Amino acid sequence: MGKVQPEEKDVKEKTTEFSLVRVKSTWKGQLGKKINKDRVDSVSAAKICENVTEKGTTWTVISPIVFTYKVTETQGLLDPGNDTLLLGHINDPQQLEDIKKSNKPIRRFVVVDQAVFQIYGSKLTEYLEANNVSYKILALPTTEENKSMETALKILDEVNNFSLDRRTEPIIAIGGGVCLDIVGFAASLYRRRTPYIRVPTTLLSYIDASVGAKTGVNFANCKNKLGAYIPPAATFLDLSFIQTVSRRHISNGLAEILKMAMMKHGGLFELLEKHGSMLLNTKFQTDNSVYGCSTLKAASQATRIAIMTMLEELAPNLWEDDLDRLVDFGHLISPALEMKVLPSLLHGEAVNIDMSYMVYVSKERGLLTEEEKQRIISCMDRLKHSGGLVRMPLPVGLGEAERSRSHCLCICNKGGTGSFTFFAAELTV
Amino acid sequence: MGKVQPEEKDVKEKTTEFSLVRVKSTWKGQLGKKINKDRVDSVSAAKICENVTEKGTTWTVISPIVFTYKVTETQGLLDPGNDTLLLGHINDPQQLEDIKKSNKPIRRFVVVDQAVFQIYGSKLTEYLEANNVSYKILALPTTEENKSMETALKILDEVNNFSLDRRTEPIIAIGGGVCLDIVGFAASLYRRRTPYIRVPTTLLSYIDASVGAKTGVNFANCKNKLGAYIPPAATFLDLSFIQTVSRRHISNGLAEILKMAMMKHGGLFELLEKHGSMLLNTKFQTDNSVYGCSTLKAASQATRIAIMTMLEELAPNLWEDDLDRLVDFGHLISPALEMKVLPSLLHGEAVNIDMSYMVYVSKERGLLTEEEKQRIISCMDRLKHSGGLVRMPLPVGLGEAERSRSHCLCICNKGGTGSFTFFAAELTV
Repeated sequence: MGKVQPEEKDVKEKTTEFSLVRVKSTWKGQLGKKINKDRVDSVSAAKICENVTEKGTTWTVISPIVFTYKVTETQGLLDPGNDTLLLGHINDPQQLEDIKKSNKPIRRFVVVDQAVFQIYGSKLTEYLEANNVSYKILALPTTEENKSMETALKILDEVNNFSLDRRTEPIIAIGGGVCLDIVGFAASLYRRRTPYIRVPTTLLSYIDASVGAKTGVNFANCKNKLGAYIPPAATFLDLSFIQTVSRRHISNGLAEILKMAMMKHGGLFELLEKHGSMLLNTKFQTDNSVYGCSTLKAASQATRIAIMTMLEELAPNLWEDDLDRLVDFGHLISPALEMKVLPSLLHGEAVNIDMSYMVYVSKERGLLTEEEKQRIISCMDRLKHSGGLVRMPLPVGLGEAERSRSHCLCICNKGGTGSFTFFAAELTV
Repeated sequence: MGKVQPEEKDVKEKTTEFSLVRVKSTWKGQLGKKINKDRVDSVSAAKICENVTEKGTTWTVISPIVFTYKVTETQGLLDPGNDTLLLGHINDPQQLEDIKKSNKPIRRFVVVDQAVFQIYGSKLTEYLEANNVSYKILALPTTEENKSMETALKILDEVNNFSLDRRTEPIIAIGGGVCLDIVGFAASLYRRRTPYIRVPTTLLSYIDASVGAKTGVNFANCKNKLGAYIPPAATFLDLSFIQTVSRRHISNGLAEILKMAMMKHGGLFELLEKHGSMLLNTKFQTDNSVYGCSTLKAASQATRIAIMTMLEELAPNLWEDDLDRLVDFGHLISPALEMKVLPSLLHGEAVNIDMSYMVYVSKERGLLTEEEKQRIISCMDRLKHSGGLVRMPLPVGLGEAERSRSHCLCICNKGGTGSFTFFAAELTV
């Protein structure tokens, strides 16, 4: 029950900072820093600063929002007895207990990449049935070419028909980075924010898309031109999904692990030098009879370090207020390149082209020694990135180009002569 | 340059909280609460909590993002000598000085409601020309029916062609609430967040849409089903725009002022009881010869109190973590009603229908006295909301309805008999 204050005529300018306190249902601005906490039900971290001049009033609102999300490694995510996928995002023990006690079926809307659904669809369905979940599964071809607003709207239409609770029924995304990005984007828009869960099924998305807050779709032929910075409620990592991706896609993911190694962690770089080939051969699977327990160790160390080093960079800069980001290494020329030659080039391959170029730039600028450069290029070779060939027209003389057949650019300098070797070759990827 | 740590085998579970410190370009997780600030370049407010068990690792990321935005009253916003529209959002004095010194033309993308452009288009163009701005004006019919993803994408296409700097060149929206909501939505999506500026031209948007962080478009016939919580960089309020809106639209805005009065501020309610009719007649304009300086005072007091009380509720709950919001009064049955009878009913009219219904509910529940109820209904009457008639078919007997001509529902109970009077009438709004 406020009073209308008479306007003060003598004061030319007056600045007042208000704290915000809640009494029963009502928030009120309160003057002064000392708040009697016994008299209020809640004190906000937000503030309002009011500046009154003869010209008018300016209110400056300062409102902190805390984003909290979990990235969890687990095993057997689709084993019917493992409730991580359904309940692992819940932090409040009371809420968890209430749900477990309740007879009401859990409701989940699940978007799965089509190719992933072909492999894991029956297992997923069995899991949901066994857990008495009322569900809808939407299997979509989440390729880079379909990473569009159109696909996001298709998801939103189905989400809207399923009519989920916007706070307690997270949308689940299962697939590679493109799938996780589109679903995250759709969820971020739906009713201004609906929680979502990421389950990566490729190595690249395991250590990259899953870890941060970015969502998005391509627009006007530009990569991720539309999007949001809304982290998932949780990401559930299960390395066993990786066993069904191709060798090329393992190599694709290793590029982003190599990125973190080159940027922040010499130990991880050495691990890749030593075990990179083995990780590629075993696809990060730990039940490998040839390599045995050394795979287990190397795979788990590589992914953990890649994730932790990535989180260290993302957490203080979740909304990219600072655009100088270490994790953007390899992402200068690669986005345009990737969009240009779609679908020939995978994301990690484009990143590796970019990184190898920058390694030569660093060497030329005297920032890297010749030996360091050679070690990096050799390591890329071991992760099979010298085979990431790009379909593009190339000059074959002054004013002459070959257009009648596809030519390729070899991304790495195999001879190590200090400059790129451009040569024509059949596309092999 | 990290080291790979040997895994500890004996420990069953270990939880570690990392602070995040930056040394040169690199963020690192740091154990312990004591940070030697001389040794680091920056300490983040974010944290990472790592929990390692036999099953795997969970990282919990806690990352606060602080939203800061300005709501500024000004006069003569489109006077060529007033630089508020172009520079008023900048807080950093150094940045402001640099821009003022620079010879580089300022670049601005401006979206204006089509009807607003017809009135203020030439003044706006003159303003931008006089200030040597490199600009693009997009005039769009931003009606409730066009509040769609399609319109947002149209804006995004044009924004993308204009190729603005995503951090320093805010998109300007000039129009009513629908215009501000769509443009804010498009800006929020573009490159995951592009700053935008709101200039409301209706009373409703002046005290409602302009004040908060919500953006959105309608989807699947539901109001604001898709959106984001991204506040503008700044809102610039100039009451002189209001003079060109119709009386019905003033009444529309008064409904939301009444809402804040009823929820939080008895003084504002009394002000509306006393001066409501006058504010409606003068359209909140201060150069009125009939009412003179009492308009000035009442208009400025009413808008200031409405804005401050609204900000008090929004700032502590900018992302609506708490869904129990006082400002949602009048928004229970109104959204569906509004969408159902589009375009007959304005937003404030729908809100007033909802509020008047709730006043009767409150009275029936013994929460309001008969006298209070009467005062509210009389005040609504004074703000001309008893004339907010709804076009809808009505039963005129058992199993009989009139469909051949429009019928109306009178939203207020003029007789004050404690129940609604439903009667057929010609649509007068």
